[in-house]
Amino acid sequence: MNLAPLFVPYRVAVIGASDEPTKLGFHVMKSLKYGRFEGLIFPVNPNREEVMGIKCYRGLREIQMPIDLAIVVVPNRSVEGVFKECLSKGVKGIVLISAGFKESEGGEGAILQERLRELVLDSVPVIGPNTFGIVSYPHRLNASFTPEFSLVRPGNVALVSQSGGISHLMGFMALEMDLGLSCVVGLGNRLNVDFHHMVEYLRGDQNTSIIGLYVEGIESPKLLMEAIARAQVPVVVMKAGKGEIADKASLSHTGSLAGSYEAFKGGMTQAGALVLEEIEEFMDILKAYQVLRPPSGPRIAILSGQAGPGIVAYDTSIQRGLLVEPFKDETLRRVEEILPPLAIRSNPVDLGPLWYDEGATTEVVRRIMEDNRIDAIIFLMMFASANREVIPALIRGLKDLPLHKPIFTCIKAPGAIWQEAVKEAEEGGILCNFPTPERATKACYNMLILERLRFRKKGGRFGAHR
Amino acid sequence: MNLAPLFVPYRVAVIGASDEPTKLGFHVMKSLKYGRFEGLIFPVNPNREEVMGIKCYRGLREIQMPIDLAIVVVPNRSVEGVFKECLSKGVKGIVLISAGFKESEGGEGAILQERLRELVLDSVPVIGPNTFGIVSYPHRLNASFTPEFSLVRPGNVALVSQSGGISHLMGFMALEMDLGLSCVVGLGNRLNVDFHHMVEYLRGDQNTSIIGLYVEGIESPKLLMEAIARAQVPVVVMKAGKGEIADKASLSHTGSLAGSYEAFKGGMTQAGALVLEEIEEFMDILKAYQVLRPPSGPRIAILSGQAGPGIVAYDTSIQRGLLVEPFKDETLRRVEEILPPLAIRSNPVDLGPLWYDEGATTEVVRRIMEDNRIDAIIFLMMFASANREVIPALIRGLKDLPLHKPIFTCIKAPGAIWQEAVKEAEEGGILCNFPTPERATKACYNMLILERLRFRKKGGRFGAHR
Repeated sequence: MNLAPLFVPYRVAVIGASDEPTKLGFHVMKSLKYGRFEGLIFPVNPNREEVMGIKCYRGLREIQMPIDLAIVVVPNRSVEGVFKECLSKGVKGIVLISAGFKESEGGEGAILQERLRELVLDSVPVIGPNTFGIVSYPHRLNASFTPEFSLVRPGNVALVSQSGGISHLMGFMALEMDLGLSCVVGLGNRLNVDFHHMVEYLRGDQNTSIIGLYVEGIESPKLLMEAIARAQVPVVVMKAGKGEIADKASLSHTGSLAGSYEAFKGGMTQAGALVLEEIEEFMDILKAYQVLRPPSGPRIAILSGQAGPGIVAYDTSIQRGLLVEPFKDETLRRVEEILPPLAIRSNPVDLGPLWYDEGATTEVVRRIMEDNRIDAIIFLMMFASANREVIPALIRGLKDLPLHKPIFTCIKAPGAIWQEAVKEAEEGGILCNFPTPERATKACYNMLILERLRFRKKGGRFGAHR
Repeated sequence: MNLAPLFVPYRVAVIGASDEPTKLGFHVMKSLKYGRFEGLIFPVNPNREEVMGIKCYRGLREIQMPIDLAIVVVPNRSVEGVFKECLSKGVKGIVLISAGFKESEGGEGAILQERLRELVLDSVPVIGPNTFGIVSYPHRLNASFTPEFSLVRPGNVALVSQSGGISHLMGFMALEMDLGLSCVVGLGNRLNVDFHHMVEYLRGDQNTSIIGLYVEGIESPKLLMEAIARAQVPVVVMKAGKGEIADKASLSHTGSLAGSYEAFKGGMTQAGALVLEEIEEFMDILKAYQVLRPPSGPRIAILSGQAGPGIVAYDTSIQRGLLVEPFKDETLRRVEEILPPLAIRSNPVDLGPLWYDEGATTEVVRRIMEDNRIDAIIFLMMFASANREVIPALIRGLKDLPLHKPIFTCIKAPGAIWQEAVKEAEEGGILCNFPTPERATKACYNMLILERLRFRKKGGRFGAHR
């Protein structure tokens, strides 16, 4: 199946378009307009002359041009007729937002869905049913009922999820974290587009350089494993629905069984994906990949403006398995040239006395980066009245360093001015900032582990897929 | 020792006050002014006529009035002389911000600190040395070098920490989380005021209803255990410095050994405190106590506007040990009266179809609250274009419920308007909001566990301290 028409359409029909804010067809129209879609929009609704100032059509047939993508948001029993129209019109992709299919009780919905599946087979890719839709950022296509997804900036992270609620949560988090997305995809009941189709498509997508999957339950983990094993881009997976009752909830939700968590995790890991347990950790590694090149090994230096955060990061490093080893003698000597006797100069390094001094701080970072036994740097500093003026110059200093190893930071201060400086540094790929020392450290660790899984895969040790 | 003069002083001298932004004495003066301290401020500096428009004194002796609190921010070698002046002046409390004591290398600092200790013994409580200071919110006293602490609103949470960096991080997080504080205390090198003194003082402080301790290493865990065992208010502890090298870092940092983590954790738990591993979890439970009454048992209902977040919360519940059991038959019947067939109505409950309907959603919550087998509610809902108008009415509805059980929420939407409604609900004690379903669930669990530890303590089963 060719999924491109879903993500790069030019002519989009909204079947069930509406001017009524109580209808999802209204919010879909709002999304297309609000997202500034630059293609052509064709509202379809037999009871309207126009919708949001755009000429409305009684049916697909009335549209004189071919249609690339149909967004369908009509009651479940009307969908079959709409699909027949789509097929005879030669529509190349469908986003089926309507609910009331396999996820609903009583069996009728499952029968409806099966009839749709038999109708389209693999002729046209269908996202849904029972989904909020999809967003394709580079093409400004917001084919969802949530205009707010267009507030997130375009970037290289693809989010594919089986849950509308989780997609929304992650989208809103992306906004807060300044994470840029290439697409958000709500797979819903997966009529004929499943996770493995999405990974196959996204691995060839030039706008995507990391894929995040939120999975509840899938019928064909093997197909997903194979797709992941073929992907060059890193893949991160979060799996919810780990227990028995969760299975039940998940069955009703998107019509699938969650299955054994451990088996799933093993399979995904074997295929070269990193499986994470919590939403924040999942989002954090996506951000790390967006901003930084991964560390080339587990040996980190912890530098902190105040000792406490360094100790917390040290605890996390040891707990996870990063190496915090003493510097080479020469590095230590060169750091000692800068740091006064008050400080701890080994690893972790207490930069405390350099609190005000961006030049000396940058120089310490430079000398530690030059230690070939160090693969990555965790840099933690709190700023307030006595040192906040330093932030912009410090970040300029870090940016100008000749050698670059990934810097995971927890830089924090009240107010907003410092955030601009940090954001700029992130855009320049200099550092990636996290809310706590623990989260900065975990992101570093997770990146390292995912790189190892990918390296193993490239080395061809993953049997069938070399 | 009477610690009250540290927290409720009227006449405060700043020894080392300055008009130079490169001096900490400048930032301390700024804190007192910025924090709108309503007592009298006496800058002391032999080289100034006035500081920040306030008459400056050459020495303590020149001040005609008695002094309650002296904030000392002079070079380490000048501190002994200043202390002698303080004692002869009859100062009742000292905040010693200066560094260069036990935490520094070479032994000289440790000797200086020991001389100070012998000088004051237990005659006057000394916070520090090597601290940012303290903030006493109900009395608008910001006796620290960080004016930004005064941005945090007054509340009932006391934060006592051995690390300036962590105190700052937690203070900035409090600001973001709308957590209200009764005090922030940076103990530094603990000349004669240690954690157990602080717990003793705070357990009688009418402004404090929960105490959070960030500990790196202490010499007398037994004294702290006894103080915690005597406290009626809940105590939460985070211990950093769990490993060997962390011990070393911590030794240099505040001049103390971190000790065995497991032994420490066991002792604190036995005394009735909850020991947590991560900063976010630590802050989250403080917020939960600020807003909610603890659940009376482990049986929770998970209600979610979209199934996915409910499944994630379910996973967390099972992993930690909360009970998510089916409702009573009657409750299920009464919930089924409201929810259409699309939904999962057992526990977890998928409120999906009621997305737009605040009245029906509130009614479901009410009927589940009336189930005497339910102790707490986890409520998760994402809001955007299609349903965001509902938030204020939904929260009004929850507020008007006749029966109240604690509601832990993850309510999220882009933008700021909804946040006002959530904040208002938190102020009313109706719900407590968290950034993810996992964090909402963990807060509920941690509250329950801490209540059990406290209950055991009240029951007198904790040997010596009944």
